[in-house]
Amino acid sequence: MNPDRLRKQLGFVTEIDKLKHVLRRTVTIDENRNENDAEHSWHLATMAVLLAEYVTGEPVDLLRVVKMVLVHDIVEVDAGDTYCYSGADPAEKLDRETRAADRLFNLLPADQAGELRALWDEFEERATPEARYANALDRLQPLLLNYHALGKTWLKYGVTRDQVLKRAHPIKESVPALWEFAENLIEDAVRRGILSK
Amino acid sequence: MNPDRLRKQLGFVTEIDKLKHVLRRTVTIDENRNENDAEHSWHLATMAVLLAEYVTGEPVDLLRVVKMVLVHDIVEVDAGDTYCYSGADPAEKLDRETRAADRLFNLLPADQAGELRALWDEFEERATPEARYANALDRLQPLLLNYHALGKTWLKYGVTRDQVLKRAHPIKESVPALWEFAENLIEDAVRRGILSK
Repeated sequence: MNPDRLRKQLGFVTEIDKLKHVLRRTVTIDENRNENDAEHSWHLATMAVLLAEYVTGEPVDLLRVVKMVLVHDIVEVDAGDTYCYSGADPAEKLDRETRAADRLFNLLPADQAGELRALWDEFEERATPEARYANALDRLQPLLLNYHALGKTWLKYGVTRDQVLKRAHPIKESVPALWEFAENLIEDAVRRGILSK
Repeated sequence: MNPDRLRKQLGFVTEIDKLKHVLRRTVTIDENRNENDAEHSWHLATMAVLLAEYVTGEPVDLLRVVKMVLVHDIVEVDAGDTYCYSGADPAEKLDRETRAADRLFNLLPADQAGELRALWDEFEERATPEARYANALDRLQPLLLNYHALGKTWLKYGVTRDQVLKRAHPIKESVPALWEFAENLIEDAVRRGILSK
């Protein structure tokens, strides 16, 4: 056992405890309080396990998907959550998150830093089946929460049907069956008055 | 696509959102507020990925370990968290959690209900290398948090060094290198006065 290696690994494990304090705009269903990134990542990982059968094309490597969603928001420990409908400058966001990735993943030994950084890059680039599935889940989960929390976040920020449809669109490419479901949910939300036209 | 199957899967995904409201006694490091089961499960899953090299004996199936820790506390949606030092009757706890497992996992289609139930049973029985590793992580993570939160929960509930050592003991069998680390952490906590002798 290399004590320096273990020290780095457990230092990273301790540092990412902070992800539990990074709040998202989406609220939890029953308590209507802001969800945090750690809870969100757990939810996505569990969904990845349960919904993999709906991925079209070649089967995905589920372990890679799960690892990807577990670490996809870790950069937000430094960079904070950027609300998807905030109109934030994507280049500024990328710059902020890249600096965060440089610091955070490099707390780990080099081999693991490289693995997690590559998973994060892959998630952001959405070019592999695993990354497309992970991104689809990342779009579906807040949709489910917002719907069941009676549109609280949508109404609060004046989000419209077309914005939500556009945001959900990556679901279509990876998991078309879930896209059909998502479209129906969005239309029903409009009918129920919990999402603006 | 079978709409009834998808409806059941997403019903389960929605139901387990409640895990974000099940509070543990352990507190998060920076905010010193109670950690919840969803955050805890995310932390364990990420640790499972990063620390697998320390498992002794035959290599573990990492995907099975990750699935196991993602779902190991889901029964607490119904059964609530039972504090490990509370002296609760183990038979009563098992009965409560078994009823919870019967209800919750059966929200899923039968094949997935069976898979998740088997993973939960396996975690509880600690008879496989995967279950032993998952349990070791479940003991190590609160130890790390309690240490870095300056023993807040230990001091509040009057927990002693011997109780913590006993509770951490499953770490020894699965990941001896982490046991050595855990023992040092416990002794240091006593020296610093954040854990009673």
